[in-house]
Amino acid sequence: MANIMRTLTVNLGARSYPIHLGEALLPRAGDLIKQVGCGEKVGIVTNPKVAELYLATVEASLRRSGFHVATVVLPEGEAHKNLDSLATIYDRLIAERFDRSSCIMALGGGVIGDMAGFAAATFLRGIPYVQVPTTLLAQVDSSVGGKTGVNHREGKNLIGVFYQPRLVIIDVDALSTLPTRELVAGLAEVIKYGVIADPKLFGLLEERLDRVLALDRELLVEVIAASCAIKATVVEQDEREQDYRSVLNFGHTVGHALEALTGYTELLHGEAVAIGMVQAATISARQGLCDEKSLSRISGLIEKAGLPTKVPSNVGLKELVWGMEVDKKSIGGKIKFVLCRGIGATEFQRFSAAEIVAQLAA
Amino acid sequence: MANIMRTLTVNLGARSYPIHLGEALLPRAGDLIKQVGCGEKVGIVTNPKVAELYLATVEASLRRSGFHVATVVLPEGEAHKNLDSLATIYDRLIAERFDRSSCIMALGGGVIGDMAGFAAATFLRGIPYVQVPTTLLAQVDSSVGGKTGVNHREGKNLIGVFYQPRLVIIDVDALSTLPTRELVAGLAEVIKYGVIADPKLFGLLEERLDRVLALDRELLVEVIAASCAIKATVVEQDEREQDYRSVLNFGHTVGHALEALTGYTELLHGEAVAIGMVQAATISARQGLCDEKSLSRISGLIEKAGLPTKVPSNVGLKELVWGMEVDKKSIGGKIKFVLCRGIGATEFQRFSAAEIVAQLAA
Repeated sequence: MANIMRTLTVNLGARSYPIHLGEALLPRAGDLIKQVGCGEKVGIVTNPKVAELYLATVEASLRRSGFHVATVVLPEGEAHKNLDSLATIYDRLIAERFDRSSCIMALGGGVIGDMAGFAAATFLRGIPYVQVPTTLLAQVDSSVGGKTGVNHREGKNLIGVFYQPRLVIIDVDALSTLPTRELVAGLAEVIKYGVIADPKLFGLLEERLDRVLALDRELLVEVIAASCAIKATVVEQDEREQDYRSVLNFGHTVGHALEALTGYTELLHGEAVAIGMVQAATISARQGLCDEKSLSRISGLIEKAGLPTKVPSNVGLKELVWGMEVDKKSIGGKIKFVLCRGIGATEFQRFSAAEIVAQLAA
Repeated sequence: MANIMRTLTVNLGARSYPIHLGEALLPRAGDLIKQVGCGEKVGIVTNPKVAELYLATVEASLRRSGFHVATVVLPEGEAHKNLDSLATIYDRLIAERFDRSSCIMALGGGVIGDMAGFAAATFLRGIPYVQVPTTLLAQVDSSVGGKTGVNHREGKNLIGVFYQPRLVIIDVDALSTLPTRELVAGLAEVIKYGVIADPKLFGLLEERLDRVLALDRELLVEVIAASCAIKATVVEQDEREQDYRSVLNFGHTVGHALEALTGYTELLHGEAVAIGMVQAATISARQGLCDEKSLSRISGLIEKAGLPTKVPSNVGLKELVWGMEVDKKSIGGKIKFVLCRGIGATEFQRFSAAEIVAQLAA
């Protein structure tokens, strides 16, 4: 039986790009990149764990396609997503004499993708880059849409730019080596797409969660394709997050604050978002936007997936709201919240710190 | 007699912006910024020397217009145009709780403008910024066109992005406190505009150089307006320097290499460019593109302005060519040179390192 491969397109005029999604794509990375026309040098940015699993395959593929390869292995984790790691990337690109036609490949999860993308955006005022996400979270979210950046000790992604990749290569085979906790954390974002825009995807997850967790390839391609299609549609409408794109932040306002307050170590991003979605759905219900049945389906699916639903007991409500205020979605003191209207639709509302404390405490 | 004020526009669709040019504009900065619609916070980025001269005036003007002002004073000079200074800016913006509607003002020369612009481009994935250039070099060149960035120890501006300001405010009064050496260095870029695109401007400089150096306000406004108009036209045609915009790099390929090789201390940017223009015009003559009379008018005007024309004796030819190769205009080993066809027109040619050594040594 032939390997599955599907191609979606993110339509952004001159900045449009394909997403190739399927099985056994890592060994074809060189060919796929060749098709979008990069220069002769490719700089792979990755971390030790991913390097051990996939670097040899990807390097060999690139070399077979005639590329000169330079690899930068950065320490793993959100704590290293900072200006120092960026400096390491820049140093290497300069030492290897990368020019404007050279290309960067992000091989790894969201941390690697965000940093490699930001390095590409800012090296020589912008060189091409390719996203090769190896975690479910990165495959359905961060690899598509051109958000790049690094953290500041006061908050996540405070330093960054919008800069679209030339190509995204999503190989579902990479998920077979992903720890279950990370796979489940990635599912939080898939559930999010169902809540904000796709009742059918939500229903499919409710029905076939066990098969997704068992890494059924066909099903994985289906839910990842549905997720990427929603992400692409939103990004096409509002590339630079002037307004509508922040619909994707459903669950993220509380989620980001939780991550910051727990030092980016206790909770995975998807886990923090899972808690944030339950909070956002709860506020939606209190505002009369979300019926009780939908609220219970949302928290039910999140729980069934093995994700947390409650704010950790060591995080106080006031701290949490302070954490949200420093987040970049706060404008003029009021915090912009994405609420859900049942399953499949959303609405924006702005709340002050006091209003949020009152609603979450209620 | 009323103060002179002229307004040019850089036409870049949704990213278009005005350049206000004239006398006594610093005390009106608040009003002018108010007109382009920023949020309530303005972060001024400046250096100690400029702060001593103009900060009080600008801060007072902003406060009169109702802005909350936060000022970041960075150490002066090209050596501080790096990731560390950027971190200082980010820290302050976060401490002052800047949001996406807040604005950054670059008050100073090119170093300040490039760093403040890059900080604006990358803070929260882009907030508005205003250029208020106080040197002639920044007024005619770096403040217009959206090039932002910082240096790497291996070369200038290797890290950066294209990001247009919302507004440029050019007050010729600021030139009265500029050291003569810096004024003259700025003139190198004005001469460049004459050579590449404007024989009339070149002739005006030949005729009235003494009045420009005596800071005749009306004449300054005329030559700065002519310079900015050329820069705007070029940027409008090729905002991201895919090709044609590099016409502005006439004299800069050698110039940048000279600056790097002399550690950014010996030569001012304009002085390095002056030497580079003489080299580029010489190569142009050797290629049969530039007649001897034009070559002698070009080197004559540069010399008459008090600018250097010769490569410093401590810089070897081979070093110089190596310095050019690391520069970002090098693609695939060949260096892209801007040559002049007499005065007022240009042509691109690519040379290998060996070809340049042969031509410069001839």
